[in-house]
Amino acid sequence: MKIKNDLLLKTLKGEPTQRPPVWLMRQAGRILPQYREIRNRLSGFIELVTTPELAAEVTIQPVDELGVDAAIIFSDILVIPEAMGVDYEMIEKKGPSFPNPIKSITEIEQLTFGEDAASKLEYVYDAVRITKRELGGSVPLIGFSGAPWTLLAYMIEGGGSKTFSKARKFLHTQESAAILLLDKITESIISYLKNKIEAGVDVIQIFDSWAGILSPQLYQKYSLPFISRICKEINEVPVIVFSKDAWFALGELGKLDCQAIGLDWTVSPQIGRQWVGPEKILQGNLDPTLLYADGNQIEKAVTQMIHDFKGKHIANLGHGVYPDTPLENVKCFVEAVKGFKYP
Amino acid sequence: MKIKNDLLLKTLKGEPTQRPPVWLMRQAGRILPQYREIRNRLSGFIELVTTPELAAEVTIQPVDELGVDAAIIFSDILVIPEAMGVDYEMIEKKGPSFPNPIKSITEIEQLTFGEDAASKLEYVYDAVRITKRELGGSVPLIGFSGAPWTLLAYMIEGGGSKTFSKARKFLHTQESAAILLLDKITESIISYLKNKIEAGVDVIQIFDSWAGILSPQLYQKYSLPFISRICKEINEVPVIVFSKDAWFALGELGKLDCQAIGLDWTVSPQIGRQWVGPEKILQGNLDPTLLYADGNQIEKAVTQMIHDFKGKHIANLGHGVYPDTPLENVKCFVEAVKGFKYP
Repeated sequence: MKIKNDLLLKTLKGEPTQRPPVWLMRQAGRILPQYREIRNRLSGFIELVTTPELAAEVTIQPVDELGVDAAIIFSDILVIPEAMGVDYEMIEKKGPSFPNPIKSITEIEQLTFGEDAASKLEYVYDAVRITKRELGGSVPLIGFSGAPWTLLAYMIEGGGSKTFSKARKFLHTQESAAILLLDKITESIISYLKNKIEAGVDVIQIFDSWAGILSPQLYQKYSLPFISRICKEINEVPVIVFSKDAWFALGELGKLDCQAIGLDWTVSPQIGRQWVGPEKILQGNLDPTLLYADGNQIEKAVTQMIHDFKGKHIANLGHGVYPDTPLENVKCFVEAVKGFKYP
Repeated sequence: MKIKNDLLLKTLKGEPTQRPPVWLMRQAGRILPQYREIRNRLSGFIELVTTPELAAEVTIQPVDELGVDAAIIFSDILVIPEAMGVDYEMIEKKGPSFPNPIKSITEIEQLTFGEDAASKLEYVYDAVRITKRELGGSVPLIGFSGAPWTLLAYMIEGGGSKTFSKARKFLHTQESAAILLLDKITESIISYLKNKIEAGVDVIQIFDSWAGILSPQLYQKYSLPFISRICKEINEVPVIVFSKDAWFALGELGKLDCQAIGLDWTVSPQIGRQWVGPEKILQGNLDPTLLYADGNQIEKAVTQMIHDFKGKHIANLGHGVYPDTPLENVKCFVEAVKGFKYP
């Protein structure tokens, strides 16, 4: 099916457009009253993730309400660990928690992986199919996965953490176990993303949310090669890689076999372009807390940002939109991008 | 009193030494059984901070046990907010919590500040005096403070946070209130540090622990100028500035009126030197999780680090030592530095 709003796809092909496309990380979520209404009816976050009709509904809400140029399938990066046999719970106001985090290579050897893991995520592919049907080709649909290191970090740490010191300790002390686990996660991600593409997603984004907590040496060894493998395997649709806070690796990220690199809000557009190089599309990167400011400030910041990126740019925040951001300010952000015209 | 082990002071003067001096952030703390023994006898962390004899005792423990080249006074960055009238509690395994975080400019106008605030911290100056007496000139004593932005972040946010989104929102939406608060915090810090120096500390370190969560623009406006003012005022002893994760500001930090810049573990020694420039001493920056590895790995990493810094260097970790680090590995880190000889 031909996509009517092809701004994102054209941009990812490197074709010129009149303005950058715009979407927000976590646009399907608590910023929308429609989302909160559905969420409050349910037993929990995971029920929403695993019910395809509802996941599709909240995926489409921001397209209708905000007028963004892309939808991103509502899901969670931790469905992969779960499909591999490491269950998690989502604890209200606290975040994910794994009752039985991974401790040994024996446990890793017993994990389900690859297509055997990916085939357990039929509810995600169903959500993609329903969403695609309901979008009716209005905007492209983005599918996503956590990066291997970020998923390993949760599986070892057992939940969120400021330092992920257990996970980093694991890299330093159980090197071959870490590599085996990263291999199995990577194989699972590749199968998962290929299934998502077959179900209909038009673009893939990889989130390495905890990239920036690694030293450059650890990142080189335990994150980058596995993202690289995923990028080499996924050729069917464009791929965006967002390694949050990994400023030190932007040069290497620029060499990945992917179309776009996401930037967090600590990287200026000029430095981002300089380090990533001239080829890739850059995505980002307004400070999410700027959306707490008034409309004039938001508009000014958006205009400045688009100007500084000088094209080859997908407008977005530098992180997921914070859940208490006023809806009108999110709309102001989207409208400011849509009001821009490249000279 | 002449300091016997003058490695740190010589290094901070830019004088050549046979090897870099070594100390660890959070060396007085849970890594030491002696510390845990004292801490377990007490009602809480704050009792230890506010009892000068005990604070002095735990300050000296790592000098005896680890053989480090400097002591750092046992205290907390949040004594300044408390002295200004914003009380906090330290909740076990959770961190600091402010029952009444600051919400408005009216509250800021009523805060105690400058010498009026600093004079409430006599227990810190007592701890410094006792420590100096008991050290008997063996090693220099470091005094410290949080940086103004980091203290504001806690006072507005009400506790620790992954995003400090309330505090960042405050900067975007209540600009003049934020500046007024930063002014008052800065005045308090300057008085506090001058009192500490009068009580006997030989070196000052400023911790901007949450620097890296700001965009470069916000950092330029709400953090750097206030640190700069402190550096200009403190001339009696050398000053080390550690702005964690503020890689984007290393060029400007290099121009501060201070002697040394701390680096976290994401900045390679080469990049740190290149961005900070040739003048300053650099401090850091081994990945703290490397101390979970075995002795051989630690020794190898320490040797590589010292080699890469090529002098003008204070050996340290890139962050506070993690509390569950095995004591023998901390000793191995210290010994590896002490075994190094510059060519």
